[in-house]
Amino acid sequence: MKNMKSPDMMMEALEAMGEKAKMASRVLAAMSSSTKNNCLLKMAEAIENELKVIQVENKKDLDAGVEKGLSKAMLDRLELTDARIAEMAKGLREVAALEDPVGRKLSNIIRPNGLEIEKVSVPIGVIGIIFESRPNVTIDAAGLCLKAGNAVILRGGSEAINSNIALTHCANLAGMEAGLPDGAIQFIPWTDRAAVSKLLKMDKYVDLIIPRGGEGLIRAVVEQSTIPVIKHYKGVCHIYIDSECDFDMAEKIVVNAKCQRPGVCNAIETLLINAEIAAEFAPMIADELKSRGVELRGGRDFRGFVPDAVPAAEEDWSEEYLDLILSVKIVSDVAAAVEHINRYGSGHSDGIVTTSKERSDQFLRDVDSATVYLNASTRFTDGGEFGMGAEIGISTDKLHARGPMALPELTTYKYLILGDGQIRE
Amino acid sequence: MKNMKSPDMMMEALEAMGEKAKMASRVLAAMSSSTKNNCLLKMAEAIENELKVIQVENKKDLDAGVEKGLSKAMLDRLELTDARIAEMAKGLREVAALEDPVGRKLSNIIRPNGLEIEKVSVPIGVIGIIFESRPNVTIDAAGLCLKAGNAVILRGGSEAINSNIALTHCANLAGMEAGLPDGAIQFIPWTDRAAVSKLLKMDKYVDLIIPRGGEGLIRAVVEQSTIPVIKHYKGVCHIYIDSECDFDMAEKIVVNAKCQRPGVCNAIETLLINAEIAAEFAPMIADELKSRGVELRGGRDFRGFVPDAVPAAEEDWSEEYLDLILSVKIVSDVAAAVEHINRYGSGHSDGIVTTSKERSDQFLRDVDSATVYLNASTRFTDGGEFGMGAEIGISTDKLHARGPMALPELTTYKYLILGDGQIRE
Repeated sequence: MKNMKSPDMMMEALEAMGEKAKMASRVLAAMSSSTKNNCLLKMAEAIENELKVIQVENKKDLDAGVEKGLSKAMLDRLELTDARIAEMAKGLREVAALEDPVGRKLSNIIRPNGLEIEKVSVPIGVIGIIFESRPNVTIDAAGLCLKAGNAVILRGGSEAINSNIALTHCANLAGMEAGLPDGAIQFIPWTDRAAVSKLLKMDKYVDLIIPRGGEGLIRAVVEQSTIPVIKHYKGVCHIYIDSECDFDMAEKIVVNAKCQRPGVCNAIETLLINAEIAAEFAPMIADELKSRGVELRGGRDFRGFVPDAVPAAEEDWSEEYLDLILSVKIVSDVAAAVEHINRYGSGHSDGIVTTSKERSDQFLRDVDSATVYLNASTRFTDGGEFGMGAEIGISTDKLHARGPMALPELTTYKYLILGDGQIRE
Repeated sequence: MKNMKSPDMMMEALEAMGEKAKMASRVLAAMSSSTKNNCLLKMAEAIENELKVIQVENKKDLDAGVEKGLSKAMLDRLELTDARIAEMAKGLREVAALEDPVGRKLSNIIRPNGLEIEKVSVPIGVIGIIFESRPNVTIDAAGLCLKAGNAVILRGGSEAINSNIALTHCANLAGMEAGLPDGAIQFIPWTDRAAVSKLLKMDKYVDLIIPRGGEGLIRAVVEQSTIPVIKHYKGVCHIYIDSECDFDMAEKIVVNAKCQRPGVCNAIETLLINAEIAAEFAPMIADELKSRGVELRGGRDFRGFVPDAVPAAEEDWSEEYLDLILSVKIVSDVAAAVEHINRYGSGHSDGIVTTSKERSDQFLRDVDSATVYLNASTRFTDGGEFGMGAEIGISTDKLHARGPMALPELTTYKYLILGDGQIRE
């Protein structure tokens, strides 16, 4: 299955997957909440029941990974332990318990001519999800798409191919027992790059592409796709420490935003310190961070206060370290902080620590990011922390969805216009 | 100005336009409603005052058009008469009077940890608008983008180049007197195709592309763009006449939807008639339409009832005639009508005429179009008719904006998270 004999056959098969997904999406759009929830619960049950079978397939991927020389961290992310499979099943049950995002009345007006115009939420249609490594994304994404009434075409990394096929197969069999249409959840079984290129051109069938992975993957998707893309790009997040602030609060927030989980997108990569307080604050925060194993990088000004810091290169300011490394810059005022963030940041999560209403207003207004914080750690950018339930990712785009993207963002809307014979004069 | 000596120079100049637009967008995002409205009013005044100058430039385009052999209809669309210039100025004043779409509080929650999460509307940033022929689009689009706090880069058709440059120049001079930042409204003065290709790759600066024009233009934009695109695609609109309906109402709606203004996107191109009533309804509506000069095209079944109808080819079902031509099909039931519409339609505006609650519910739920009508003419798909004020177009896309697209759809949102020292455990 991994490579088809003829590229033409693969192209035809992908085209057929697209058509099948579009047809399934019509059925899903008309499906009741209880049927969708039933499918999700059946899928959860099946994943638990088929744990052993899934793990046999996962073992194939792990063995191949060892042979390919994958890093220990990558092998760890690939492994479907009992706990991880239980977590996936729990995730599906949680999604089943969430409110149905389809059929919400978003607005309703009656025009002077008597026409009633109702704006209602509807599924998007067919969503293509392209991701790397972690096989649990397969089930999480399929569950969220299904709940929002969308068909999904998944394409995972080659190193998890057997695990992904097993998971999709299992979820489909169980779902279909509860009324899931054939084609609602499909996984692309070919690891060729040409398969992704083809998917990205199938705008006749696919309504949205969500890529999840590194910069290279996302760039390639954006360049090739004729289908709208919502990017889940890197997080180059900042905290700016204003001259007027509670140093104790500032220190706790910076430590949390950098150290609590450095490998995630909402951890900070750059700290900006107001020049007026730098002489006092910079050495203090540097000591605290160094004691937690954080490597500090900075320009000449910062190194004036913290001489053992590593000199920062221009690339440091736009780097997503995902590690215990922090670049630090001294800035003259809020405007300079905002300018740095809008220039080097990724529009993800950025914060200010200040007691000044004027400066926080300026920062909150002028920083052009999905989430802008006042006196809190950037680590809260997360669907769960926002009270949205499960999330499909965090959009760094501005169109359709921005920031944590959950069930409502997996829907669109249509207008229903109810008349009694109105014609236009 | 129309063609630069060196393509490299043009590329550099376009890059500089992008950077300037991005910088202007930062200023616009922080601008008060009254300043923006003032700019709009000044622009309106200037266009009226500079009428003669604009018409001199417009005359150059008209003369060149005659020389190129443009059709009478095209020359008519190109002409900036006194009335059309007055209309543009009126449009700007109307936009000034509309509510500011920026700064709306879309939601506000307080989390158990005390974090306040506020979702507010903000400008998108920089919008690229690519359009053909009619020069009034320049001013309409610039006005709407400005009101929503966005910088705009416009690219119009070569046949209106002098008119467009004159209009943009005039609007800019007047706007700047009232505080409009340099770079807020820019027009690409080069008619080379390479300039569009470059614009479509400037994702570093441009946040959204809106193409307005024919199928070829839109296809080319979608294929090249690395920037999100909202398409304003063709309108292949349908009305389905159910077996249970008021024939008199059905006739009035069909005549209005086809004949009142056949050259627009929300006019119908295909009529679907339920088989049960076809023997009675088809000849009746055919006579009515023929008396108004409509050419009818249909399959064998329809021609059984209306023998002088033109045989329809497969291409007829997806054709946007924009003319007094209507294709007609006999269908067995609502499901068949829905299937035809979802297959051949363009997801724009489609309606049903029926007295059955069950069938209208099914139709409204299952038709996958931006606007779905019950017992009304499809001609109402329009920002003005929807009570939105001015519109920038009608989106046939599903992401971000669907159907009539007005000021709120020219904004996005960001989350402001207000804390008092919260960190993540």
